[in-house]
Amino acid sequence: MMPPARWFEYPVVVHPHQTDYAGIVWHGTYVAWMEEARIECLKSVGYGFAELIESGCDLQVVELTLRYHLPLRLGAAAVVKTFMAPVHGVRYDWHYQICDLATPRLCVTGTATLVPVERDRGKIMRRVPSIVQTCLERIVDEFYAAAQ
Amino acid sequence: MMPPARWFEYPVVVHPHQTDYAGIVWHGTYVAWMEEARIECLKSVGYGFAELIESGCDLQVVELTLRYHLPLRLGAAAVVKTFMAPVHGVRYDWHYQICDLATPRLCVTGTATLVPVERDRGKIMRRVPSIVQTCLERIVDEFYAAAQ
Amino acid sequence: MMPPARWFEYPVVVHPHQTDYAGIVWHGTYVAWMEEARIECLKSVGYGFAELIESGCDLQVVELTLRYHLPLRLGAAAVVKTFMAPVHGVRYDWHYQICDLATPRLCVTGTATLVPVERDRGKIMRRVPSIVQTCLERIVDEFYAAAQ
Amino acid sequence: MMPPARWFEYPVVVHPHQTDYAGIVWHGTYVAWMEEARIECLKSVGYGFAELIESGCDLQVVELTLRYHLPLRLGAAAVVKTFMAPVHGVRYDWHYQICDLATPRLCVTGTATLVPVERDRGKIMRRVPSIVQTCLERIVDEFYAAAQ
Repeated sequence: MMPPARWFEYPVVVHPHQTDYAGIVWHGTYVAWMEEARIECLKSVGYGFAELIESGCDLQVVELTLRYHLPLRLGAAAVVKTFMAPVHGVRYDWHYQICDLATPRLCVTGTATLVPVERDRGKIMRRVPSIVQTCLERIVDEFYAAAQ
Repeated sequence: MMPPARWFEYPVVVHPHQTDYAGIVWHGTYVAWMEEARIECLKSVGYGFAELIESGCDLQVVELTLRYHLPLRLGAAAVVKTFMAPVHGVRYDWHYQICDLATPRLCVTGTATLVPVERDRGKIMRRVPSIVQTCLERIVDEFYAAAQ
Repeated sequence: MMPPARWFEYPVVVHPHQTDYAGIVWHGTYVAWMEEARIECLKSVGYGFAELIESGCDLQVVELTLRYHLPLRLGAAAVVKTFMAPVHGVRYDWHYQICDLATPRLCVTGTATLVPVERDRGKIMRRVPSIVQTCLERIVDEFYAAAQ
Repeated sequence: MMPPARWFEYPVVVHPHQTDYAGIVWHGTYVAWMEEARIECLKSVGYGFAELIESGCDLQVVELTLRYHLPLRLGAAAVVKTFMAPVHGVRYDWHYQICDLATPRLCVTGTATLVPVERDRGKIMRRVPSIVQTCLERIVDEFYAAAQ
């Protein structure tokens, strides 16, 4: 994977509903944060997720990996860093690093792979609507332009 | 409110993702359990929720109240007891009691009021599709028949 | 209830994990947003929730009411407005209004009542630690000072 | 990985709060189901999760992978199948298959790796308390005994 020139940064704060009996963030909470960061990243280049899927093309997660290095505690401020790798075929690979802002140490790393799916029939799309295509190109430009 | 002849009972067990930093069930978790109990109750009289809403009529929550009397801890087995009161107009009132099976003590009481909504336009329906009508009548029969 | 001089405002955006099959925010999601707004409000007057509960006093929800007026859709930007009413005894009443920023219309109203609980024994505290006492006084001052 | 003689089976039903705008199970929901299946599996060999962690040893997820093959829709009945692989060192690998009972087709595959952690200090334990040790041995026996 080619490293990007920069990462998109999405700040989060640990609230009680995201913790579990151990006093730390429940491990599934990070999946929601990864989704939020991805969608705010699309918005940062001008595309609302709701507008994108109105084109008839949904972007669905087909693969997810997470590695937990350090826990985040109640009240912690953290940042979810992400970028989308250059597209090959119809798989969009997003990479993640979640860091505790206080320490600052890497708490979680992860990836999410999405594919474009026809909303009506649930089939993977080989050719996506132009709004989705343009959005994905801008995302990759955003992260790699400065590196070229 | 007329008391029913019996309550529908839906068993639950407290898993880690439902607890918070205090080692007890996070207070919002009960809303999900109340929904699950309601839907399993509909199923118990022969109606799948997905089939009901295919009629074009969604059943949406418009009011929710919860009172927390005692906490439930990690691993606790509890029962969500519910019934639907006789219908007046287009408001369906569901009543809840959530009890810890070990003690057995009342932990949470609550109500959820639902209304029938046109799925396409989001408007409250004055007349509901016959499948919904029949389902609601059976639910009330179920809880009050023996009492009559 | 005496109206406050102002409300604390906590912005939220509707992400996919907060929606349900109907394409709108799942009704339990608002409970999490109400908690987040409450905790960010405490932070705005100088008190981190994690620091507060380190005093041995937890603030637990004992009552919750929500009324749903209008749905929020995927991608919507909304604001959770809240204030805490002047304290009588050991019940802290928080009031809520959740508004769609685009329309701008009132979508949800609610209340949450909290009580101070000894973390070790789970008993309601008649006298709270001074950090909690000072925090609650500041919160009330914050909302009512300008009105006096 | 050595295949087990059998899998533990944990039934689930798709409720509204587990779906998203696309009418299918939100991808993070499976993480909760995997946790529930794991804990019910421990219970099936005689160990309550709450009792295990009272020994001072928490079992924390350090790695998670999921592959999404087919979506599950509102109302679907599914089964979460799981087993724990023979232990090497201090990593406990759980394998998952989630199947739609109606079709019956494989919807999601996944793995979760857990490690024993000292509850007080958050450090990985090289030697676990005897209750945890015995539990883990019974789990492996359970899945592999018949295969030997």
